[in-house]
Amino acid sequence: MNILDIITKKKNGKTLSYDELKYAFNAYLNKDIPDYQMSALLMAITINGMTLSETLSLTDIFIRSGEAYDLTKTMKYVVDKHSTGGVGDSTTLVIGPMCAALGLHMAKMSGRGLGLTGGTIDKVESIPGFNINLTEEEFYKQVEEIGFALSSQTADLVPLDKVIYALRDVTGTTESIPLIASSIMSKKIAAGANNILIDIKVGSGALIKNESDARVLSDWLIQIGEAYKRKVKTIISDMNAPLSYAIGNSLEVCEAINVLRGKKCPLYNACVEIVANLLSMAKNMDYEEAEIRAEETLKNGSALKKFYQFVTTQGGRLREVSVADKVIQVKSKKEGEVTKIDALGAAKLASKLGASRLSLNDNIDYTVGIILNVKIGDKVKIGDTLLNIYMNKKIEFNENDFEFIEVE
Amino acid sequence: MNILDIITKKKNGKTLSYDELKYAFNAYLNKDIPDYQMSALLMAITINGMTLSETLSLTDIFIRSGEAYDLTKTMKYVVDKHSTGGVGDSTTLVIGPMCAALGLHMAKMSGRGLGLTGGTIDKVESIPGFNINLTEEEFYKQVEEIGFALSSQTADLVPLDKVIYALRDVTGTTESIPLIASSIMSKKIAAGANNILIDIKVGSGALIKNESDARVLSDWLIQIGEAYKRKVKTIISDMNAPLSYAIGNSLEVCEAINVLRGKKCPLYNACVEIVANLLSMAKNMDYEEAEIRAEETLKNGSALKKFYQFVTTQGGRLREVSVADKVIQVKSKKEGEVTKIDALGAAKLASKLGASRLSLNDNIDYTVGIILNVKIGDKVKIGDTLLNIYMNKKIEFNENDFEFIEVE
Repeated sequence: MNILDIITKKKNGKTLSYDELKYAFNAYLNKDIPDYQMSALLMAITINGMTLSETLSLTDIFIRSGEAYDLTKTMKYVVDKHSTGGVGDSTTLVIGPMCAALGLHMAKMSGRGLGLTGGTIDKVESIPGFNINLTEEEFYKQVEEIGFALSSQTADLVPLDKVIYALRDVTGTTESIPLIASSIMSKKIAAGANNILIDIKVGSGALIKNESDARVLSDWLIQIGEAYKRKVKTIISDMNAPLSYAIGNSLEVCEAINVLRGKKCPLYNACVEIVANLLSMAKNMDYEEAEIRAEETLKNGSALKKFYQFVTTQGGRLREVSVADKVIQVKSKKEGEVTKIDALGAAKLASKLGASRLSLNDNIDYTVGIILNVKIGDKVKIGDTLLNIYMNKKIEFNENDFEFIEVE
Repeated sequence: MNILDIITKKKNGKTLSYDELKYAFNAYLNKDIPDYQMSALLMAITINGMTLSETLSLTDIFIRSGEAYDLTKTMKYVVDKHSTGGVGDSTTLVIGPMCAALGLHMAKMSGRGLGLTGGTIDKVESIPGFNINLTEEEFYKQVEEIGFALSSQTADLVPLDKVIYALRDVTGTTESIPLIASSIMSKKIAAGANNILIDIKVGSGALIKNESDARVLSDWLIQIGEAYKRKVKTIISDMNAPLSYAIGNSLEVCEAINVLRGKKCPLYNACVEIVANLLSMAKNMDYEEAEIRAEETLKNGSALKKFYQFVTTQGGRLREVSVADKVIQVKSKKEGEVTKIDALGAAKLASKLGASRLSLNDNIDYTVGIILNVKIGDKVKIGDTLLNIYMNKKIEFNENDFEFIEVE
């Protein structure tokens, strides 16, 4: 087999066989073919697409590139969830404890954030002492005993996805449904859950730009799941408005605790929906009943208890979580209704404060960020606070920084 | 400007501006963007195409990447020709002297061959003493005085084409009409001719697979020429059958001399056609008259005289050209008609003998090759010689090696 023939075949819109895909992708992982040939192939795949059968092949090749875990040997109701990227998305910190409180098991591996959207690992690292580098033994023992553990993704989980993802990121080939589908599903399947919920974010700033693409992706995720005997459900949700009032690492941890204490807000509703789906899948329960059971864990404090247990077991000292001292209030200059809160714009402002990293070597200031004081549809008067800014360093703001929120 | 935005724009099938193309390609030449980003862009261009306006932009960016010559200051009838790759194509060695004999000027820069088709430079290097590294001054002086000179392409003639061509070659992006058009025309325009003939080879083994692609390429070449006030004519010709009976470096030099002496064969006809086109373009002459004048140079020995003068001036010692001693005759096992002589298959056989290089570091054996003894349509009997093989090293032949020639 020859990499040039494989590239040319896909360039001409033909279907690649399992062996051809295996040859090309494994050769890349083994550094037998250079970046520029793989990027040409990825571009041909992105433009000309892949069939479901090719996508199934690629998912399988991804999974086999590393270790695959089977948690169902020791645990019955193993769940996992994935979001295709969002702003102010601290759902994992809420739904992990909720699932644990319902007798489900969630072994969550997560990454650091890069760009404007923060990763869950960054959020928990704002808790002093929190250990994200659990050994495999510690990790699975905690999942079995408490029901929820969070660890940074290990190097042996789908190593092929790591190198391909890094290359896609710098070659304009991120927005490919077959590549997104195989990337997501290979990691979820290798991580060992048998009930998987994927939250597909749609919006101008998201990987998936429109609902019809989201529906295709949803369909493929479910079919890949079926091929591996995993139940997969999807939620298609709007990422134009931020999910949480808080954007910034320790601020989001605090907001997650607020929701676990029963604070009603968009994040509360989103978490109930996700957990209800996982529960109904895992225990074959009616969705309506699952929804009631999920919400109960927020009302009766059982999820909050699991959260404290989870943080303490991983060494986190919640009392030491701090937010920036300096708080600035941004007030409305108009009377009217809040018509727009753009998630990406809010994330850019938080990024300017130091809440995220743009290169892997940047440091994050865990204590800074913003708290929105209004939601879309709220009526405001001149002088009403729209948001609070938590900051440490001296920053020059300009009008553009606040354009993401509109009052009309 | 940002390379990722440019790649993404072309991936989405949009048109790139002059400034965007300039930014991307110049950044690549300056090594400011890596191979894998340029290969992703080249693949997006290959699949999604470029408009004529983008192709004109790219041609201009290519030309400006190096030095551009204007030979028309000192010479009136400056001609050039280019072939998009052929087997047994030693036309340059015939048409250069023919043009010189007609008072035209051809300053031919050429490259070494890579792969199965040999370059003109390799052919003249089979003449002991031949100097292909003329200084700029020597080169243009010879063109002015004799009418024809041949030199290896200088590093400052379209340096961008060199790096892009090398990358296209290893990323499956050679078969792109806009990229082929800008590569050819930038070199021809920078080299300074005002009358240009392009011989577009069509066939399964050629860059251009079918006639309709050839017609599009032809149209674009002419329009790019117009934008630079150069007359461009094209010939679309079949590359399925080899142009010359000889394939191999010194064998092709000998065959060129045979044609210059008046030997009638497909190469003779092809050279008359090319020179007639160049002459009619350069001197605004009727094609029929130009054809008669072109053929005269082969009949009256004036082109042969120019050939000797050209070789001697560049230091070549024609009497020392040698061909391999060992000659094997391949005979027909059937009685019938010659129905196929596949150029690529013939080139593969010559390559097996050592006549071409597959990697830039390979050595060529100038003395080996094949001479066809028949042409398509010839009637042969069992035992008639189909071809002669000139070889030095011991080679194991098998049935496949001779499948390129069919008798039925």
